Formats: sequence, C-alpha cells, structure tokens
Amino acid sequence: MPELRRDPVTGRWVIISTERNKRPSDFHVTHVRPIAREHCPFCPGHEAMTPPEVLAYRSNGAAPNGPGWDVRVVPNKFPALKVEGGFDREADGMFDRMNGIGAHEVIIETADHAKTLATMTEGEIERVLLAYRDRIRDLKQDGRLRHILVFKNHGAAAGATLEHGHSQLIALPLVPDFVREELDGARRHFAEKERCVFCDIVRQELGAGRRIVQENADIVALSPYAPRFPFETWLLPRRHGARFEDAPAHEYESLARMLKAVLTRLDRALEFPPFNLVLHTAPFTDEAVESYHWHIEILPKVARSAGFEWGTGFFINPTSPEEATQVLRAFSP
Amino acid sequence: MPELRRDPVTGRWVIISTERNKRPSDFHVTHVRPIAREHCPFCPGHEAMTPPEVLAYRSNGAAPNGPGWDVRVVPNKFPALKVEGGFDREADGMFDRMNGIGAHEVIIETADHAKTLATMTEGEIERVLLAYRDRIRDLKQDGRLRHILVFKNHGAAAGATLEHGHSQLIALPLVPDFVREELDGARRHFAEKERCVFCDIVRQELGAGRRIVQENADIVALSPYAPRFPFETWLLPRRHGARFEDAPAHEYESLARMLKAVLTRLDRALEFPPFNLVLHTAPFTDEAVESYHWHIEILPKVARSAGFEWGTGFFINPTSPEEATQVLRAFSP
Repeated sequence: MPELRRDPVTGRWVIISTERNKRPSDFHVTHVRPIAREHCPFCPGHEAMTPPEVLAYRSNGAAPNGPGWDVRVVPNKFPALKVEGGFDREADGMFDRMNGIGAHEVIIETADHAKTLATMTEGEIERVLLAYRDRIRDLKQDGRLRHILVFKNHGAAAGATLEHGHSQLIALPLVPDFVREELDGARRHFAEKERCVFCDIVRQELGAGRRIVQENADIVALSPYAPRFPFETWLLPRRHGARFEDAPAHEYESLARMLKAVLTRLDRALEFPPFNLVLHTAPFTDEAVESYHWHIEILPKVARSAGFEWGTGFFINPTSPEEATQVLRAFSP
Repeated sequence: MPELRRDPVTGRWVIISTERNKRPSDFHVTHVRPIAREHCPFCPGHEAMTPPEVLAYRSNGAAPNGPGWDVRVVPNKFPALKVEGGFDREADGMFDRMNGIGAHEVIIETADHAKTLATMTEGEIERVLLAYRDRIRDLKQDGRLRHILVFKNHGAAAGATLEHGHSQLIALPLVPDFVREELDGARRHFAEKERCVFCDIVRQELGAGRRIVQENADIVALSPYAPRFPFETWLLPRRHGARFEDAPAHEYESLARMLKAVLTRLDRALEFPPFNLVLHTAPFTDEAVESYHWHIEILPKVARSAGFEWGTGFFINPTSPEEATQVLRAFSP
C-alpha cells in the first residue's frame, strides 16, 4: 500500500510509493568521478582565471592569488547577485521588484582536482566547513543581507558546471520562502510544546533506531521520516543551536567525520551518485534562536524530478527511509 | 544588474540574473523527437499491455480495450496512489501518516506514436482537454478525494519514462502545499481588493503588452513576471473561473488552439525542448470560487535545477520574461 507521510517541520506531504519499490541497482545513476583537469579554473596555478580571492587558507604562508592554498574562496565569475549598488525596492504596477543585492561566492574545497568530499581527509573536510563559517561570519557584517545559503552541487546531473570540488554561497537581502516555511514550522512546534522540533526528531529517532544511519559524539545522520528523494540523508547536531556559524569547534570536527562517512556510504551504495548538499541555518535577523536547529541535508539525484513535483511541491519517493537506512548501514566506510 | 522579482500570487521571489544572460542557442537542450515504436504499451494493438481503460473516445464505435480509439485513459500500471482501501490517518510517534488513497491515471493523447501536442491538430488537442475534464468530473464523485493534479512530462529530461504522447492525472486525499500557497495568495488578494489576482494580472499584462506571447478570443498566453524557468509560459482564460472542469465548451476549443500555437513556438525557438505542463485548478472542497482562476503553466526544461533551488524554493532564471516573450513572438507558428 502506498503511504502518505508528513514532514513534522514544514508540513510537506510525501508519497512513499512502495508499488514502485526501487533498490539501488534499479536507479539510472550518472556516476560522478572527476577526471579532466586541463583548463580547470579551480586548479592551482590557474588562480588568475577566477576573480581575486576573498578568503584562502595557506599552510605554507604563500602570497594571495597564487598556488599554495588548501581552501580558496572567490566571488562567482557570473554572479546571480552583486554586492554593489542600492536596494531600490519598487513596485512595477501590481508587481514587486528590487535590485539583486547580495553575494555569490565559490568555495574551492581542495587543490586536488581528483578529490571529492568523500575521498578528502577528515581534516581537509573540516577546513571546508571552517571556510563556510568564516565567510558567513564576515558577510553577516553587511546590514543589507538577511540570509546566507551554502550549498553544493556534486556532478553535472545535480547542476554542477565545473568538476573540481566546490561549494557555493549565496547571501540574500531577504529570507527565501522555503527557509521561512521551515522556520515557521519550527516556531509553531516550539510555541505549542516549548521544545525544538529538531531536538524532538533526534530524540525520537535515536529511541526508535530504524532511520539512524550513523551517529558520533556530536552528530546524528538519519533518513528523515518524509524524505523527498531516495536516500535523502540529514546530519543534525545533537546539541541545540540555531546557527551553524556559532557552533563550538568540536562540532565542525565531528561534522567533518560524519560527512566523510555518510558520503562514502552513498558512494558505495549508489556508485558515486550526483547529489545536492544544503546547509540549513537561521537567518541573521531572525529571533528563531530557541526554535530553530541548524543541520545539513544531502539530496542524492538518482531519479529525475518531474512535473508532479514542480506543480505541487509534492514528492513521490520510491524508496522508503527505512529501506534506505538499511542499505546505507550495510555499506560501512 | 541582477533583479529580484516577486510572484504576486504565491509571494515567491525569483532572481532574474542578467549577468548570465542566455539566448536560446546557449542552452543545452536535449531535443525531444519521438521515433521508436516497437513494444510501446500505448500504441494501438497493444491495449493488453496496460490495465483496462477507464475512458476512451472511439469515433468508429469499436469495442473497449482494442484498437480504434482516439484518446484512451488507463490506470497507471505502477500507481503512486490507489483507489482501494481505507483512510487510516494515524500518528507514528511525533509523525503523521495516512494510506496512499487516490488515483493515478495515464491519458494517452493520440494513437499515433510519432505525434506530439504541438504536431497534433487543434481538434485532437481539444479531445485531450475534454478527457482531462471528463476524468476530473468522474473522480470528483469520490468523497475521499480533495484535489486532482493533471500534468504532462514531455521528454526524458522532464521525467517522461515513455515516449508515446501522454499526460498523467493524480487524485489526492489532501490539498498539496504548493496548491495551498497559491490558493492562499489568491484569497489574500481577493480579501484586500475584492478582485481575482489572476484577472488583475491578465488585465495589467494586456495593457502593458511586454510579456504577452499570444492571445485569442478566450485565452491569453504570457511570460509571467517572476518566472522560475527560462521561457516559462502561462495560459490563462480571460473569463474568471476557478475550475477547469466547469469551463464553457468554447474555452477548451480556444485553449487547444493556443496550446498548439505556444508549443509550436517553443519547439521552433528552443528546438523541441523537454517540458512539464501543469494544470492549475481549484480543489474540490475549496470555497475559492471567487478568488482562484484556473490556468495552465508550461515549464520548459532547458537548464538543470540544482541545490540552490531545492534548498530555498528560490529560483535563478538567466532569461528575463521580456526577452523570452520577444523570442517566442518571433517564432510564429
């Protein structure tokens, strides 16, 4: 029997369609294995092919915008939003518009073209997470900005246009709808129960165990109850905290270890699938400190999304989270 | 300068990113031209390969479940939802679930494997629209169902798994989030102004003209002010009406003519792009008769959606609707 499940935060309904039950081998996965490295603008020695860096970690003390970096952050060459200019919010007849103020940056995760987050060391992954933190802390100074979105498209099928491992950051002058929905859902739960809904999820899932992929001292990786995509996996800190950039140092270290473990499981179970990774963290201006809980969502792209999803915000998922958990557990790193 | 634009119905913000401005020739379109026809379960003579039909139009009076049909509607062989069974709404700890009650049907649009909605005659397209209407009217009798979604995935990149021209219908025991958002937005506009927001859009756009692709006696085709996708096109009836299935007969005829014209323009401008087509119509139970306005949204799939969109519900569109309109106008059928 197909099942309708509701996400307890956003209220989003998902169809878990057991009739079309799919095991990993049934998906048509476009495998992601970086190989080409000629003319790559993100490779060391090609620093002049990007705009000047806004942040870099260099263990050897070399000069900016040359080789020797471990992680490097540069503005996107074709930014969707720009830092320069005024707000100019205005009406256009019955419509609303404003200038595209904001920032759009690229976090180059490693100097090694052939490495992925799954094959980097835990220390290398932690540096990437610290670069996320440092850029968020810096951009927060700009009073025009309201929210920062950090995300990663891994593989062309997930939207990546360059192969060399990188994440992106978009700083926005407003809080986007989906983020607002999630914040509102968390706030409603808190208003009713005086508890964080994500803390409740972590507690219930650790108690039940059926959807826990892996856990360590600080981080719990689980298949959410109402996943939109097959093998969707969330990484939540055990400790309550609304903002990624305010996490204690040991959480970045634990998160790096968990990211490596979970991405390795996904690579083994699904043979190097494309995926999107999205950091969910509270907006700058928001007072959601009690009710919101930062976390990371990993969305493998093993089936195409189609008209039904776009038309309704309603997802059909052929793999139950309980089954996905079993599969991911079986492929231990 | 990039621009942020807000959809007046849903409140959804979209980035129109002129920095990455793209003309039709810049997109990597996977062209959709049906060719293979062996073993196609939707071709005449293969009726036994599908579940028994629930509706068919046969101009020659032939028997059901054999050849001779012009349009044929069958249950999906791998349904996401099923008609049989009880509701069984229940809690699972802090989570909510219910049985996947509903219907999932396939509307086979033509007996000719090589035809598409753009190459079918206007009369043939009108029959497809009447099949949508007749199935909605029939399924409305089932008191457990709240909403029907009719959509079409054209081309593998848009999610189609079979090539032969077909639409799908999913009848749901609830009103999905995106539909609810659109209804709520329309209701807010009506509460404030005592006017339908879609009627206001049609009026303003016809006055301004810059985003009008084509119009006929009953239907206006336009590029919406805040489109999520390049060349996104909406077809709206001029006359106010909340429900597709209650439209007067001449509107289906006019809509068929407009669909053929707009899909032909898209085929010429973008060289046979994949697309999703979604019918937006009021839920059964809803009292949105005054505030909602049925319409069709066509979403070409010329760029991949990526992490940013999934993480935020926030879209980056490299083609402004004004430019898309100019291009589509230039490719007249």
